[in-house]
Amino acid sequence: MPAGYELAKRIDRSTVVEAGGARFGDGGFSLIGGPCSIEGADQMERVATAVRDAGGAMLRGGAYKPRTSPYDFQGLGDRALPLIADAAEHAGLPTVVEALAESQVPLLQTYVDMIQIGARNMQNVPLLRAAARTGMPILLKRGPAATLDELLCAAEYVLLEGNERVVLCERGIRGFDSNTRNVLDLGGALRLKELSHLPVIVDPSHASGRRSLIEPLTLAAAAAGLDGAVVEMHPEPDRSRSDAPQAIDCATFARIAAGVRSITGALRGEASRCFSVL
Amino acid sequence: MPAGYELAKRIDRSTVVEAGGARFGDGGFSLIGGPCSIEGADQMERVATAVRDAGGAMLRGGAYKPRTSPYDFQGLGDRALPLIADAAEHAGLPTVVEALAESQVPLLQTYVDMIQIGARNMQNVPLLRAAARTGMPILLKRGPAATLDELLCAAEYVLLEGNERVVLCERGIRGFDSNTRNVLDLGGALRLKELSHLPVIVDPSHASGRRSLIEPLTLAAAAAGLDGAVVEMHPEPDRSRSDAPQAIDCATFARIAAGVRSITGALRGEASRCFSVL
Amino acid sequence: MPAGYELAKRIDRSTVVEAGGARFGDGGFSLIGGPCSIEGADQMERVATAVRDAGGAMLRGGAYKPRTSPYDFQGLGDRALPLIADAAEHAGLPTVVEALAESQVPLLQTYVDMIQIGARNMQNVPLLRAAARTGMPILLKRGPAATLDELLCAAEYVLLEGNERVVLCERGIRGFDSNTRNVLDLGGALRLKELSHLPVIVDPSHASGRRSLIEPLTLAAAAAGLDGAVVEMHPEPDRSRSDAPQAIDCATFARIAAGVRSITGALRGEASRCFSVL
Amino acid sequence: MPAGYELAKRIDRSTVVEAGGARFGDGGFSLIGGPCSIEGADQMERVATAVRDAGGAMLRGGAYKPRTSPYDFQGLGDRALPLIADAAEHAGLPTVVEALAESQVPLLQTYVDMIQIGARNMQNVPLLRAAARTGMPILLKRGPAATLDELLCAAEYVLLEGNERVVLCERGIRGFDSNTRNVLDLGGALRLKELSHLPVIVDPSHASGRRSLIEPLTLAAAAAGLDGAVVEMHPEPDRSRSDAPQAIDCATFARIAAGVRSITGALRGEASRCFSVL
Repeated sequence: MPAGYELAKRIDRSTVVEAGGARFGDGGFSLIGGPCSIEGADQMERVATAVRDAGGAMLRGGAYKPRTSPYDFQGLGDRALPLIADAAEHAGLPTVVEALAESQVPLLQTYVDMIQIGARNMQNVPLLRAAARTGMPILLKRGPAATLDELLCAAEYVLLEGNERVVLCERGIRGFDSNTRNVLDLGGALRLKELSHLPVIVDPSHASGRRSLIEPLTLAAAAAGLDGAVVEMHPEPDRSRSDAPQAIDCATFARIAAGVRSITGALRGEASRCFSVL
Repeated sequence: MPAGYELAKRIDRSTVVEAGGARFGDGGFSLIGGPCSIEGADQMERVATAVRDAGGAMLRGGAYKPRTSPYDFQGLGDRALPLIADAAEHAGLPTVVEALAESQVPLLQTYVDMIQIGARNMQNVPLLRAAARTGMPILLKRGPAATLDELLCAAEYVLLEGNERVVLCERGIRGFDSNTRNVLDLGGALRLKELSHLPVIVDPSHASGRRSLIEPLTLAAAAAGLDGAVVEMHPEPDRSRSDAPQAIDCATFARIAAGVRSITGALRGEASRCFSVL
Repeated sequence: MPAGYELAKRIDRSTVVEAGGARFGDGGFSLIGGPCSIEGADQMERVATAVRDAGGAMLRGGAYKPRTSPYDFQGLGDRALPLIADAAEHAGLPTVVEALAESQVPLLQTYVDMIQIGARNMQNVPLLRAAARTGMPILLKRGPAATLDELLCAAEYVLLEGNERVVLCERGIRGFDSNTRNVLDLGGALRLKELSHLPVIVDPSHASGRRSLIEPLTLAAAAAGLDGAVVEMHPEPDRSRSDAPQAIDCATFARIAAGVRSITGALRGEASRCFSVL
Repeated sequence: MPAGYELAKRIDRSTVVEAGGARFGDGGFSLIGGPCSIEGADQMERVATAVRDAGGAMLRGGAYKPRTSPYDFQGLGDRALPLIADAAEHAGLPTVVEALAESQVPLLQTYVDMIQIGARNMQNVPLLRAAARTGMPILLKRGPAATLDELLCAAEYVLLEGNERVVLCERGIRGFDSNTRNVLDLGGALRLKELSHLPVIVDPSHASGRRSLIEPLTLAAAAAGLDGAVVEMHPEPDRSRSDAPQAIDCATFARIAAGVRSITGALRGEASRCFSVL
């Protein structure tokens, strides 16, 4: 009887996923930065420059926003894609944007380097398959109530299409305390790397929902030996059209990037350090 | 500033949703029965007859199965639809089948009376909109980590398309004890009826994942004044191709239906009984 | 290797626990009513009369209140015990009061018929043992994050002292939606009866924290075949010194008791009804 | 109207708690190490030496074990106290041991430097008060389903006795995935430092329940700017009489301590680094 995730389960080596030049799983810590929603050319230009200058690996931005309420801003849609593509090209960065529907996949394939499958769609099998068939790298977010097995089974749907370019992302599980939006399950993220050969990053923005916690949680993930983080930032955070309370400004992003470098440098300097978990 | 669910929020009267003759929200308790997966004509014929004979209101069956693992049985797909349609017509019952993708909606519109949006797709907005635009009644299941507000906001996406025929379904939230598959949130289901005018039913099968708990949980929902239940049953439960541990047999379904009648009859007999929650 | 709960695990018959004349586990549904906090002689007199007149089985009341905040009313303490004892004697009802500390056990033994171990103290082993050694019946509440196994292991500490008079109480597990104070785990309560021979009741007051949900949840527990419920009530609910939002008035208690009788009567009338879960 | 935790809430400066020479909240990261259970003189001697040699701040050990099942090893009880006291004195380390009952407090006062109130007893008010009245420093663990407010209210019970020497400890909240024993809520621990002036440490051992995750989670807590960690270790982990799966060996403890120093050193080296959260 086959296991639930034959192809995703851990083998003797880790998989490195390359996405438009960004690399995940090679021992470094790759920072993805960008706004919750793509709002305009100027916003994207400023963010892209900040991400690039800080040493970030990739630019993110939301075009199709899966908002809880239909009365909230739903994103600019298709016309957001040239905006992020132009800003990223100018800054020399690759891009990742979320797909909400199969019908959006072809346009994403034209404009971006990596397709995100969001937490709400982790088990949307038709969408997983459509994204997988592009052969593009996939950023697969864990659902807020998904077990690690369920996440790895979702990844397996992608791998079974012949696409091994999957980066897993822990973005917070549903908790019982409203002080934070969700609970960053760092232990679960680390356990994923024991169970699977795929790279694992975290999303401290959705996990905490609080600007003040993004920096310490990202440094924590770097110290724990995970493969990266995706962080929501905005040139003027309080003006964000969505998720403003968790948006950091460009200066904070730069400070986080510097902190990550200090930590990974310090840990690499220790000869005996070894997180290999098997 | 609009609330998150202007159209779904409670008004002075409850909405009755009619689906191919079945009614939800009229003060009765409507039982939906059928297998997890549609497996064949004989299976559907036997189940349909049993549901009809027991006084059930509707026939359910899965055509496209959103399985956690890609190695599990994924349902018969399109060819399942004539099987359930034929069995239901013969028994004189309306039908409900889950849609996993926008592309499945047109065929469902041809063959069934109500479209189910499953827990995994509760916030799949493109699918919600596509289903809503058919004008057909929608059975909308609560995600295992969705708040009541999030469920009502998901319903709002349907209502905003001009389709008010939405039945909400509590099917168990994610818990921490593996004794039951999920936790039936009966209090949450009751609270939904305080917050919204839409009918609310429960799914004790997915909530508990245990055959032995289906009967008492369904009777509990009836005694609590909810609007119905959807129950997984199979003529030979141990042979179910999916979710066998939670499938009941046809005799148990009949006993549940009789118990529901006893309870609703007894409570209706009391002159002073009144669950009106406002 | 011994299991975690050798003495509590299910045997071929159920245990009936008798407490000052009240019976739990004999096939009936025993209602316990009373205020969150014992506040005075008049309050207790009115409540005791209402519980008795409605056909309730037992009077409850808090003397030592385990309040989350030290600034909230902590109960009348020792001097509350004669108040509940007098009111109960006058009404001809047995009583249950919670113990928070070993030092309170002797006085409780003098004044009440059953000792409650609250959810916060479910794993307070010295307290469990001290209460057990009195030989008195114990109402053991499940902690809000306790698994069924953990609850049964806590009961085992009592049983190992030679005291088999334990009634288990599901009072809501911690959930993620603030619409209800906790989540009544009715499926877990039913599963407890499959795992153990001990009676199982529910506490809809702490489970829901909402006055409007007490009645339907209690009727649900009766329809599901559980052994009883403990309900917070007050002659003037809005004047309760603690937990006012979940306190019902005496008329509602009477209506609940009548509803329970209707349901148990109706189900008993069906020859084929049988909840035996093994 | 007073808030739930007037004395514990954040003021303009942080409180430093000193316990037998160990310091919490002074900007450093204090490691507490020791076995789950105190098993014998040789075990404690070896552990104490290892903790001291690695630069650990404090020695822990369990005397009275609050085991879920009564059939599991319950600790050596009173006679464990001289064992930890002797080993600690020889190594020049202060000690912390958990109290389960008020009656144990006087003996603990004789033998140890800090009293732990465990997760199961977080809201055991009589015990909190008895421990507080010793004037000794208190290590207060968060219950697995306790909100931050509830933890701070529990601390308030101690502070109201005139004892401000409270260190808060996040030890994992109850999750839904059995891959880890609990979920380390690092975001919640960070948020505690925003809400309160008390030091906050983590317990990666109980949080994860997995030996392989102790190191990365401890380094994560250090990088996040928390005040320390308490780690279960054993000279021969597989021979631990309790909680063996989460016990690390002495060499791993030393490596963790070195990693912590690297991280705190690296972050302190950055002029711009500042976690001040207000």
